[in-house]
Amino acid sequence: MPLSMIDEIPVIKVRALEYADTTDELAAEEPLEIRLEYGPDFHREVKNISVTMRTPGNDAELAVGFLFTEGIIRSVDEVMFARHNFDCTENRQNVIQVSLKSNFIPNLNSADRNFYTTSSCGVCGKSSIGSIRTANQFNQLTDDNSISATLMYTLPGLLCEQQEIFEQTGGLHASALFSSYGELLLVREDVGRHNALDKLIGAALNEEMLPLNDKVLILSGRASFELVQKAAMAGINIIAAVGAPSTLAVQLANEFNITLCGFLRGQRFNIYTSPRRIILT
Amino acid sequence: MPLSMIDEIPVIKVRALEYADTTDELAAEEPLEIRLEYGPDFHREVKNISVTMRTPGNDAELAVGFLFTEGIIRSVDEVMFARHNFDCTENRQNVIQVSLKSNFIPNLNSADRNFYTTSSCGVCGKSSIGSIRTANQFNQLTDDNSISATLMYTLPGLLCEQQEIFEQTGGLHASALFSSYGELLLVREDVGRHNALDKLIGAALNEEMLPLNDKVLILSGRASFELVQKAAMAGINIIAAVGAPSTLAVQLANEFNITLCGFLRGQRFNIYTSPRRIILT
Repeated sequence: MPLSMIDEIPVIKVRALEYADTTDELAAEEPLEIRLEYGPDFHREVKNISVTMRTPGNDAELAVGFLFTEGIIRSVDEVMFARHNFDCTENRQNVIQVSLKSNFIPNLNSADRNFYTTSSCGVCGKSSIGSIRTANQFNQLTDDNSISATLMYTLPGLLCEQQEIFEQTGGLHASALFSSYGELLLVREDVGRHNALDKLIGAALNEEMLPLNDKVLILSGRASFELVQKAAMAGINIIAAVGAPSTLAVQLANEFNITLCGFLRGQRFNIYTSPRRIILT
Repeated sequence: MPLSMIDEIPVIKVRALEYADTTDELAAEEPLEIRLEYGPDFHREVKNISVTMRTPGNDAELAVGFLFTEGIIRSVDEVMFARHNFDCTENRQNVIQVSLKSNFIPNLNSADRNFYTTSSCGVCGKSSIGSIRTANQFNQLTDDNSISATLMYTLPGLLCEQQEIFEQTGGLHASALFSSYGELLLVREDVGRHNALDKLIGAALNEEMLPLNDKVLILSGRASFELVQKAAMAGINIIAAVGAPSTLAVQLANEFNITLCGFLRGQRFNIYTSPRRIILT
């Protein structure tokens, strides 16, 4: 039985001076271990790549999206299949194995390009941004993507209508992909904002939609460095967050000529970088 | 010059059909590499422990708090000093080295107890929660800590008054420690909610306040598994989040007899576990 995205649990609701025993629906959070199987038919290897705390559901998209945004695989064509691990006795729903076709070699050094497994002095923003540029196959694309400000105002409302689980639990981040005509194409939710985006990009990979350089990415929360980096890997060039961006997110968007907007609420938002893609008249 | 917690950057503010060039203050986000120096005087070793995306400021607290909540050190008494790395030419503010006294051996296997560096099938909630229990030196403490519901209603307001940087940027998570009489003792802010809590616990370690089993922890956002785990390591037994908890956060709080509350807003909140510490009359 698949793990649930929501669990109903007992709760005492306290209101002013009164309280009541009732139940509440919460967003599920469970660990997911991502394993990668690769190598020639006569010598397959299995490597544990990452463990992330995620909301169950769309695990294959999450795993493939993660491998792609981290630069470990270059295309969904390299993937033979992704499935929950049948050898795992205790909780196989929390282990997903992505098996690559035998003629593809994963770029396992690519994990080193990001901040999390750096050696020596790899934590200076500049050098790291440089290595992200190298890993990004869509970096050189030219584009004439654009969206009008008035259309942009409508997107968070369209996202909210689709963000079903958040409604119930108040506990999930969402990432949504829109056409530049304001059409909602895909939405994914997760307790972890990076997971919501990896699921979205994994789904877009499955639909052979990449590069996403004619689309608009809407983030339900804040825009961190990590989210802009993942979006850049998928060729996204317009990002609008409902919350605040960080300084390093702005710096990275600037380096990649990505249009980064923040505080998209009601009839207002801020443009931090590459304003030319926003039609203001 | 220390890195800033806030950067002022140029922005185009779009409002309905108008727009204006102006500036905006954003929360800074920079990588911090945590290094650990340890071993006998004749053979000191330096190991890279972690890299986290954090808001600069209180880096020593963050590093010591992280090493403690991950079970790598057991007490602040093991620490000789923590300082930014002087050998690092490019950006020494983003590398912090914690040096242990020569007679203390860090528990580097402790990092394995959590989900992030697991091998084989370590991602099942049950076994992981079991190993957290083993690592937690304050697990066996009995306590009679309690707080009244009416006092609890006042805490988010007191936190907001102190959360200065959030006011300006809208981009930071906060963790705050209160006495059970509703007195604000410590508050720390960061773009990463786990960093805000590590800074808070690091500060409490410096003040020799542990175990924190007569205090109340307030979280400005959602309560994830990771935050409850870190709080448990510091002996905290009352946690109230302004946002939603996840299912695994509730499960862990339940296992540790921690009182976990969520949706603390205005004159209301939900109690998910161990309600006996909340005085409802």
